[in-house]
Amino acid sequence: MSVTSEATTNWNGSLFEGSGTVAPASGIGTFAVNWKARSEGAAATTTPEELIAAAHSSCFSMALSNELTSNGTPPESVNTTASVTFVPGTGVTGSHLNVSAKVPGIDEAEFAKIAEAAKTGCPISQALAGIEITLEAALA
Amino acid sequence: MSVTSEATTNWNGSLFEGSGTVAPASGIGTFAVNWKARSEGAAATTTPEELIAAAHSSCFSMALSNELTSNGTPPESVNTTASVTFVPGTGVTGSHLNVSAKVPGIDEAEFAKIAEAAKTGCPISQALAGIEITLEAALA
Repeated sequence: MSVTSEATTNWNGSLFEGSGTVAPASGIGTFAVNWKARSEGAAATTTPEELIAAAHSSCFSMALSNELTSNGTPPESVNTTASVTFVPGTGVTGSHLNVSAKVPGIDEAEFAKIAEAAKTGCPISQALAGIEITLEAALA
Repeated sequence: MSVTSEATTNWNGSLFEGSGTVAPASGIGTFAVNWKARSEGAAATTTPEELIAAAHSSCFSMALSNELTSNGTPPESVNTTASVTFVPGTGVTGSHLNVSAKVPGIDEAEFAKIAEAAKTGCPISQALAGIEITLEAALA
């Protein structure tokens, strides 16, 4: 069994002067994307790196929830921010995961160990084999 | 110079019965994400794989636009769909790029060669070193 997810980008013009929109096929929206946002940052405009951060934070949160449940300590909540860094001319240099979770009946050491396992096991971490992935984990 | 892009996921409960939302920091929205959508597909709910598809299609479109401009044949438009496949229990197995572009003054063979270079050079392709990336390219 496999699931295929799609998204389409329409781009007009050159990299530096052109602009585009990206639309995930589930219909969640159509979003502006351009080089200025990517190389300098901009509000209300997404970037490939922000979308990678969204993919990584959601996948890691699911993986951590699953590992905690398997451990007999299911989480009440998991809050993960992924920060993805882009250096123009070099590329994507890393994704940093910062997670805070409410988990009854677990101590910090056990939580840290399980969070590390979730970082390694998360399918998006595995897909992102070309960049460094770092983790900061704390109980809420 | 570097730019860091962030996104945050809030997840409640276990993997299979819980659910979450993912919010890119640029403010483009807050989107539902859950295991059912990821393992079976669902409308109006995103998945980590769909977000990877959005990142990859937008990055590749930018990279191709740049390569075409450097070649002296800037594109009028580039339309790229990325299809990312997930196999539960195995992981992300690949990203397929399907691009159609309007490019004055280029032939199919030259376009195919430049599209292949953009696939390899795209920073998101390089980050996704853990999965297979395939390409289908045609002039519009």
